Amino acid sequence: TVRRLAPHSTTIFAEVSQLATRHDAINLGQGFPDTDGPASMIEAAARAMREGHNQYPPGAGVTELRQAIAELERSRTGLVRDPDTEVLVTVGATEAIAGAVVGLVESDDEVVVIEPYYDSYAATIAMAGATRRPARMVLKDGRFRLDVDSLRAAFSPRTRAVLVNTPHNPTGAVLPREDLEQIAALCHEFDAIAISDEVYEHLTFDGIEHVSISTLPGMAERTLRISSAGKMLNCTGWKVGWVTGPADLVAGVRAAKQYMSFTGATPLQLGVAHALQHEQQWIDSLRDGMQARRDQLVDVLTGVGFDLVVGQGTYFLTADPRPLGVTDAAAWCLDLPGRIGVAAVPFAPFTDRFAGEWSHLVRFAFCKRPEVLDEAGRRLQALK
Amino acid sequence: TVRRLAPHSTTIFAEVSQLATRHDAINLGQGFPDTDGPASMIEAAARAMREGHNQYPPGAGVTELRQAIAELERSRTGLVRDPDTEVLVTVGATEAIAGAVVGLVESDDEVVVIEPYYDSYAATIAMAGATRRPARMVLKDGRFRLDVDSLRAAFSPRTRAVLVNTPHNPTGAVLPREDLEQIAALCHEFDAIAISDEVYEHLTFDGIEHVSISTLPGMAERTLRISSAGKMLNCTGWKVGWVTGPADLVAGVRAAKQYMSFTGATPLQLGVAHALQHEQQWIDSLRDGMQARRDQLVDVLTGVGFDLVVGQGTYFLTADPRPLGVTDAAAWCLDLPGRIGVAAVPFAPFTDRFAGEWSHLVRFAFCKRPEVLDEAGRRLQALK
Ligand SMILES: CSCCC(=O)C(=O)O
Ligand SMILES: CSCCC(=O)C(=O)O
Repeated sequence: TVRRLAPHSTTIFAEVSQLATRHDAINLGQGFPDTDGPASMIEAAARAMREGHNQYPPGAGVTELRQAIAELERSRTGLVRDPDTEVLVTVGATEAIAGAVVGLVESDDEVVVIEPYYDSYAATIAMAGATRRPARMVLKDGRFRLDVDSLRAAFSPRTRAVLVNTPHNPTGAVLPREDLEQIAALCHEFDAIAISDEVYEHLTFDGIEHVSISTLPGMAERTLRISSAGKMLNCTGWKVGWVTGPADLVAGVRAAKQYMSFTGATPLQLGVAHALQHEQQWIDSLRDGMQARRDQLVDVLTGVGFDLVVGQGTYFLTADPRPLGVTDAAAWCLDLPGRIGVAAVPFAPFTDRFAGEWSHLVRFAFCKRPEVLDEAGRRLQALK
Repeated sequence: TVRRLAPHSTTIFAEVSQLATRHDAINLGQGFPDTDGPASMIEAAARAMREGHNQYPPGAGVTELRQAIAELERSRTGLVRDPDTEVLVTVGATEAIAGAVVGLVESDDEVVVIEPYYDSYAATIAMAGATRRPARMVLKDGRFRLDVDSLRAAFSPRTRAVLVNTPHNPTGAVLPREDLEQIAALCHEFDAIAISDEVYEHLTFDGIEHVSISTLPGMAERTLRISSAGKMLNCTGWKVGWVTGPADLVAGVRAAKQYMSFTGATPLQLGVAHALQHEQQWIDSLRDGMQARRDQLVDVLTGVGFDLVVGQGTYFLTADPRPLGVTDAAAWCLDLPGRIGVAAVPFAPFTDRFAGEWSHLVRFAFCKRPEVLDEAGRRLQALK
């Protein structure tokens, strides 16, 4: 493994899921649902295969899917994006992120990231040979918010991009408009672009609305908005994601991604296109169920004795296991699947310059059936 | 688009296929078959989706597929590879190549490529920030062979890897053992690894056998062997590829690929696993049909007046259109779909330092049904 990737040689998700499988543990680590997407989506993909849609799709993705994404984009953000030049289908959001960073960031550029952050952000910045400049979130009135001072300190004349993520993984926080306005102001001041990972855009709770930074004044021209079918349609294993944005930025993503995967899978892209056209109600209905799952897991973890920071979006909530006598949260997470049959993910791999502020925390996923969360609750009693 | 990727901003395959679609041309450009893989493979993938295999696979790929690949590896090369650490499933061979170069080549390393070469090789070397050192092939007795002098000149103490490709795209040449021995000797002398793209391994004609450089003495420890289901099972649009090799090299590929795509598509990996286990005969039967298609296209193109160099593998053959009065082969290829309804790919994007030796040539694909090649033949008569 090369020097630039040595610090990123494994991802915590693969590691924890492997432990979970080995110990037959309930996997509240890696974020994937345990029920499938709409049956019509699966049938559409199966039909596509039977009808002979098994060879390369166009480089940008199948036309039907790009049109459906442009339609979705209009309904979610009000932005009109050309399906041919401003929409690009990727192999999950992961490839969209990698393509954006590798395709648009020069090796002498800087990229601002906001701690805690999804692990691939740092790895892709390393791939580009660029410099990572960490800002951070802070706890204010029981919610994770942007720490504006650290953000301002992280921007510089060398800043090419800021990686934005809302609803936020791992904390579950939904960034309010004011926080996004602060990021946008700095993008304008330093002529930087926003690479905005919004894969949990459809999963906000308690009546809170998701705001995309691409909708703030002047930001449509400088934002790449990334989302994916994995979380929207419960098919994380189909690896169908996308990016929308102005044509020049999308062309940069494409320049890189075409040599990473060339394309994604034709029949699955057709299945997702069908679902985006016909299953909006199914997507909308996910939200209420997921909020109930969050509340269920809050009860379970509170009952066991964790301190919690409960967010208003995503699959995840933040737990502090120190009241249970845990001193090393990362080691504790790696031990947990074997010891009690439950898996969770430590915050440590999501941290950077401000690691000390986060490393006592743990992320639990609640995107599981109620009976599975109940059983996890029973197993977690062993910690009391 | 960043400086390092600017020279690689589009791929000729997407470009020519887009032209072919626009003009409803017969696409003898991009290499994909027009008949599907075994029905049992499609049914296995459809069943996997219905049975709920729609979430993330393990980071290295689904277990069944890694076992089937290890089995295939043993039967093809005699090498025993551990499915857990020496086999990695990728999003097509493209991701395997990108992962190998980005994961294993430092920015101060050099990589030897052999002209003409598949376009992604140069792009991934640019992504790694490394230096490309071109060697070349030469025409000897009507066959493309390795030019050993240029290869020796391209190796240096900085050489980290050589990108090997046999059966060879775009020429269709199958490198004989002697040529591979020369490459292996230089790998040993300069302590370099071979990244060996063998996606057409099952498609050699005229009784010629494919030799993998991984089987030469001492090379199993320093070769990453790349192949894919796309060409083996006529499912180029499923994007299921893989790499096998020693654990330390495979770990390097994985370090990079896990941030490119994270993983490929679970149900399609299961479909391919089923086919590798149960459809070896189907795979073996491709060869004879493809040889007949090659011979058919040779007749067609000879009849039209092209000069040809006919290889003994892959989907492709090399045509020289100068006898038809063509002076700029690249421009001619971009014009052809609209003018006569046939698409082909120029050699130019596969060339580098020795561009002058190749730029008059054109690649035609013969991986199409006989009646489609017949119709292409009729359309090509217009060139006479
Ligand atoms: C791409 S693997 C991780 C899935 C995910 O979004 C998470 O668990 O954070
Ligand atoms: C990955 S797109 C190109 C397919 C192919 O192998 C070719 O046409 O050379």
